[in-house]
Amino acid sequence: MSNRHTKMDMEPLYEKPRKQTIGLVFLGTGLVCVAVGFVIGWFSRATTTHISEPKSERTDPFQHILNDLNKDNIRDNLKNYTSKQRLTGTQNVKDMVKHIAQQWRDHRLDKVEVISYDVLMSYPNITNPNTVEIVIQNGSSIFTSAFVEKALDADGNQSDIIPPYNSWAPPGIAEGELVYVNYGRIEDFMFLKNSLSIDVTNKIVIARYGKIFRGDKVLNAQRFNASGAILYTDPADFNIYGTSDVYPDSWWMPDTGVQRGTLAGDGDYLTPFYPAREYAHRLAIDKALIDIKIPCQPISYGDAVHFLRDLDGPAVPDDWKGGLNITYRIGPGFINTTRKVKLTVNNYLTVVTLENIIGIITGNVEPDRYVLLGNHHDAWVFGAVDPLSGTATLTEITRVMGEMKQSDIRPRRTIVFCTWGGEEAGLIGSTEWVEEYMKVLYERAVAYINVDYAVDYIDNLMAGTSPLLQDPLYQAAKIVPNPDSSSPYKTLYDVWNKTNPGDGTGEPSVYYSLGSVSDMAAFYQRAGVPSIDMWYDYDYKKWDILSYPLYHSAYETFHMFTTFIDPSFNYTLAVTRLWGSANNNLTLAAWNFYNHIQTVDKNDLLAVRMANDKMMQLERAFIDPEGLPGRPIYKHVMFAPSKFDSYTDNSFPGIVDTMFEIQHNNASSWELLKQQVYVATYTIQSAANSLDPIGL
Amino acid sequence: MSNRHTKMDMEPLYEKPRKQTIGLVFLGTGLVCVAVGFVIGWFSRATTTHISEPKSERTDPFQHILNDLNKDNIRDNLKNYTSKQRLTGTQNVKDMVKHIAQQWRDHRLDKVEVISYDVLMSYPNITNPNTVEIVIQNGSSIFTSAFVEKALDADGNQSDIIPPYNSWAPPGIAEGELVYVNYGRIEDFMFLKNSLSIDVTNKIVIARYGKIFRGDKVLNAQRFNASGAILYTDPADFNIYGTSDVYPDSWWMPDTGVQRGTLAGDGDYLTPFYPAREYAHRLAIDKALIDIKIPCQPISYGDAVHFLRDLDGPAVPDDWKGGLNITYRIGPGFINTTRKVKLTVNNYLTVVTLENIIGIITGNVEPDRYVLLGNHHDAWVFGAVDPLSGTATLTEITRVMGEMKQSDIRPRRTIVFCTWGGEEAGLIGSTEWVEEYMKVLYERAVAYINVDYAVDYIDNLMAGTSPLLQDPLYQAAKIVPNPDSSSPYKTLYDVWNKTNPGDGTGEPSVYYSLGSVSDMAAFYQRAGVPSIDMWYDYDYKKWDILSYPLYHSAYETFHMFTTFIDPSFNYTLAVTRLWGSANNNLTLAAWNFYNHIQTVDKNDLLAVRMANDKMMQLERAFIDPEGLPGRPIYKHVMFAPSKFDSYTDNSFPGIVDTMFEIQHNNASSWELLKQQVYVATYTIQSAANSLDPIGL
Repeated sequence: MSNRHTKMDMEPLYEKPRKQTIGLVFLGTGLVCVAVGFVIGWFSRATTTHISEPKSERTDPFQHILNDLNKDNIRDNLKNYTSKQRLTGTQNVKDMVKHIAQQWRDHRLDKVEVISYDVLMSYPNITNPNTVEIVIQNGSSIFTSAFVEKALDADGNQSDIIPPYNSWAPPGIAEGELVYVNYGRIEDFMFLKNSLSIDVTNKIVIARYGKIFRGDKVLNAQRFNASGAILYTDPADFNIYGTSDVYPDSWWMPDTGVQRGTLAGDGDYLTPFYPAREYAHRLAIDKALIDIKIPCQPISYGDAVHFLRDLDGPAVPDDWKGGLNITYRIGPGFINTTRKVKLTVNNYLTVVTLENIIGIITGNVEPDRYVLLGNHHDAWVFGAVDPLSGTATLTEITRVMGEMKQSDIRPRRTIVFCTWGGEEAGLIGSTEWVEEYMKVLYERAVAYINVDYAVDYIDNLMAGTSPLLQDPLYQAAKIVPNPDSSSPYKTLYDVWNKTNPGDGTGEPSVYYSLGSVSDMAAFYQRAGVPSIDMWYDYDYKKWDILSYPLYHSAYETFHMFTTFIDPSFNYTLAVTRLWGSANNNLTLAAWNFYNHIQTVDKNDLLAVRMANDKMMQLERAFIDPEGLPGRPIYKHVMFAPSKFDSYTDNSFPGIVDTMFEIQHNNASSWELLKQQVYVATYTIQSAANSLDPIGL
Repeated sequence: MSNRHTKMDMEPLYEKPRKQTIGLVFLGTGLVCVAVGFVIGWFSRATTTHISEPKSERTDPFQHILNDLNKDNIRDNLKNYTSKQRLTGTQNVKDMVKHIAQQWRDHRLDKVEVISYDVLMSYPNITNPNTVEIVIQNGSSIFTSAFVEKALDADGNQSDIIPPYNSWAPPGIAEGELVYVNYGRIEDFMFLKNSLSIDVTNKIVIARYGKIFRGDKVLNAQRFNASGAILYTDPADFNIYGTSDVYPDSWWMPDTGVQRGTLAGDGDYLTPFYPAREYAHRLAIDKALIDIKIPCQPISYGDAVHFLRDLDGPAVPDDWKGGLNITYRIGPGFINTTRKVKLTVNNYLTVVTLENIIGIITGNVEPDRYVLLGNHHDAWVFGAVDPLSGTATLTEITRVMGEMKQSDIRPRRTIVFCTWGGEEAGLIGSTEWVEEYMKVLYERAVAYINVDYAVDYIDNLMAGTSPLLQDPLYQAAKIVPNPDSSSPYKTLYDVWNKTNPGDGTGEPSVYYSLGSVSDMAAFYQRAGVPSIDMWYDYDYKKWDILSYPLYHSAYETFHMFTTFIDPSFNYTLAVTRLWGSANNNLTLAAWNFYNHIQTVDKNDLLAVRMANDKMMQLERAFIDPEGLPGRPIYKHVMFAPSKFDSYTDNSFPGIVDTMFEIQHNNASSWELLKQQVYVATYTIQSAANSLDPIGL
């Protein structure tokens, strides 16, 4: 689902702390500093250890992955994978899984398995479409939103495209006055209430996509008692120059495009905490804890303008204005008060089978230590960017690593290739698999490296990483050539440091707060497996937008990718090389110490193991089995998605979310806040113990 | 608190399953069989690995511990430790801790630390005694229970003995009719209700100690709406031959003795899940989830007879008859209906500091793998059996192992000596310490070996063990001499197998269900550390009693121990040797594989580590972070104390407890039962994964 700019461009969700919270804000910040400083301090010490093996011995396998990855193969894979829509639960995606699994087998991995889970999914009713209508007094409709997106290229001209909808929006009909709520953030609703005295109770809200996770827009609407929600792609956020030069003539969103997307989800709703295998006990569907309670439907800006242009009420403040050529007004209701909006949602829930592919190359020194490379393969429609640009590269990595294995270059640790189903509806395939293998992953997984989509544009590399994996990632980037061979910056590291530098660090920008935007969530948040998530991206300082414009629309086709995203496949290849090289750093080198690639004598293998165990245990020290307050599924004490925007990540979320609640509700959370500070202190102490040779 | 016979002599708590449960009983039983078979099967395979190091090299350290442990030292330690009462929170126990810590330091352990926790405790009010009275119509008392136990030997003639009480019984006054409820089990209350139509609502119940954990008697009384509870030691269970030959003339309970004991507790009530260190956030005392809600007080049988002999109502059935020379009647109320019982409890709650001593000898090969030897040092009064017979031996082990270290016989793994405070009130010292070091214990602890008290009689050895530690324990017993040197059975193993044979196994009896009776609980139930609990015991087939008679009374003195328990100290020495030898098997041998003592080349150290990691992870696979239904603190899916008797342990407790609830309440737990079967299946699969080299 991948919308990963929010942590950089989000305004704070909560108001400035009142006086009484200052001390705790200070304390919370202090804790983060202590923890990060502690990790960094430890790293500095670790890097003093020695390198004993001559460099030449390991040059070959490290170069192998750089030289042999082939962008034509990636292109072929992408063409093949995007030839049909790939929605979870359809025969198309099953066919593709069968094909990919066969490719991986042909690549001679030691083991390739398709593992299926039966999970709850949310679909629109094809024969009884979701509609957003303008109705007049006698109840008849004078405008109805489009059921499907008009095809704009040959690749997209297919009949089995899922119509736009939002997963987990319940069926229902809402009818009434419309209110424009800007991005649907808490502060937007607060502004309506406090500054304009506009109450959205029993009204339908229309919110533009952007700034925060779409599901939180609907949850906010619920909190303020709206009866339904309409989401749309405003040109200001998806066609920012406002020209008519839109897809298929540019990568900007046309007025027919609609962004699909889930409103919720952290794994299967019917089997919380445990895997949805055939032997599972499932909750009754009406017991599923789906927190989206009001109908919701996404529409295009070509449709949205019919609603927005006739709204009554005050004109919006400047920062609420979108890019349509109208006067934006808030409502409630239309100028013609006899007209109402009618929102009809006919989505339904059903259990379907999804499939993950797991491919393994067994390590020859420590088979019980894994590095996992993961991507999802399910798409909303054709998924040329999201996710199949990632899937296409993963298959190419299996090919080269299979070849290396055939040439007796076997990794010291086990490599696990994973491609997940059901990601778009809420990270379901990866979550169920992590739940199934939780114990061994917790105890044995060295790292999980996620590439959801490889490339959505070619401006700069973006990477989120556990602090523990920052150095292996940098080291990998230092040996990958800059995809722009004409540049004076010769390596990916150099150009990354140029186009997306860290803030005063002298090294490329990375962020530490790995949230729930892609499949690393269960690995990182629940099993405490140090993780990376990375991709080539547009420059979010140039374009202040939450996603590439055609994101989750029917226009994410092979044509679109090869015309507007990465026609040369050079950037896709660079991400592939980085992925493979980061894996090499963690599986080929004998002494990996996470941040320091080293080799050692065979006699010191036990010492290596013990040193690395400490580093693994450091990340696990942040996993609290009791989970965060009110969210037992989130167990990482240091980083988690915000409770109030799943696209934003908090450091010490138990503290920060509780502070937010104190701001907005009442003082009854003070005790909880103090308790959470205690849990954080305890957790940092546990982390310190993990690094001690004995730790008692 | 140690009352460890119940698992053998308990009748099933629930009735025969009705037809609809048969399938699930079968399934539950099947799961246990599968799990146990699986573990055993794996063991069989493991024992085929090779031994490569000559035996002579390790003979010396193994013999060292046998030869150098000195029973005179143990006797001296015991005399010293029992010289005063050792109640948690008093200066006496602090003085002893200081003394023991200094002994351990003198023994040259690498590190000795006293670690303190500030925890909630429950005490009787010394100036405002708890009383059980018979009152007449004008409210005046014609009989009042004794405030203190009369001293019966010189050792016990001290002024600062805590009066009898039950920890966590809340203050309160109950007045009304009395009902005799036998042992206070569910089936006793059900018999009253269903067969005799006697309702205990708003009545005071009197129950005899025995059969089940005392706290569950009070919880049962609450469930049936009693207003208060009186517990007493009936001669039938504490002076079973009914002679006048009682303490100080024998080990049987005199009519002045009272059993103290806690009614509840799994660690500190104010800091659930987290350690009660100085930085802790504590719940307000009125938020502590203490489930004992009615006043309760224990009395002697010399006092109890005043209440029981005048009861009205039907005579009791045969199996309800105690050993007093009266006709046991049920009540409700006295023959003289103007007389009532008045129960006054003035216990109070307060936060006190308790102390654990942690002593460490660092391993020289794998310092990050620990074997822990643990015992508690707090007592209700003098604690000559419980627990100081264990503490005295632990200190002697530190002496010999300190000597071994000084002679350069350093263990390969780290040995951690622990003596806990606050055990009697609910395993508090050990639980808080496990909470503090949960992460490293989960990841690094190989085994925890508990000796609460070393000896309560000399009939036979008793041992509970995780299946993983059964073989190291047997191997240790095979090199310890039989404490009775005149016996034809030369080793402890031989005499154990003779006096307490396993049921058809050909090996000595052990039980697998390590419950919450002593300090292994937090290690085993929460951190998944394979554990042993052992002691020398009376023959429970000869005497069908739940504890030795003077248990938790003021008569557990040095005089009592050296006169009636183990005057020669030969049996105490045997337990000491067994404890030290079991530790040797897990810390001296290089290849320990838990059940198979082996040694290997230095070059294979990594292979050894990997093999042992799998075994460690096997036990951890049974730890479910989500915990058991309604009891999140209990996380071991395979073994836990019964929800309905903390002294009884269930296999697959989530299943068995839920079945019990279905029997007694309604069918609404059926869904939960199915879910628990699923969790058990999942857990067994996780265990299988843990034993696989890769496991994915």
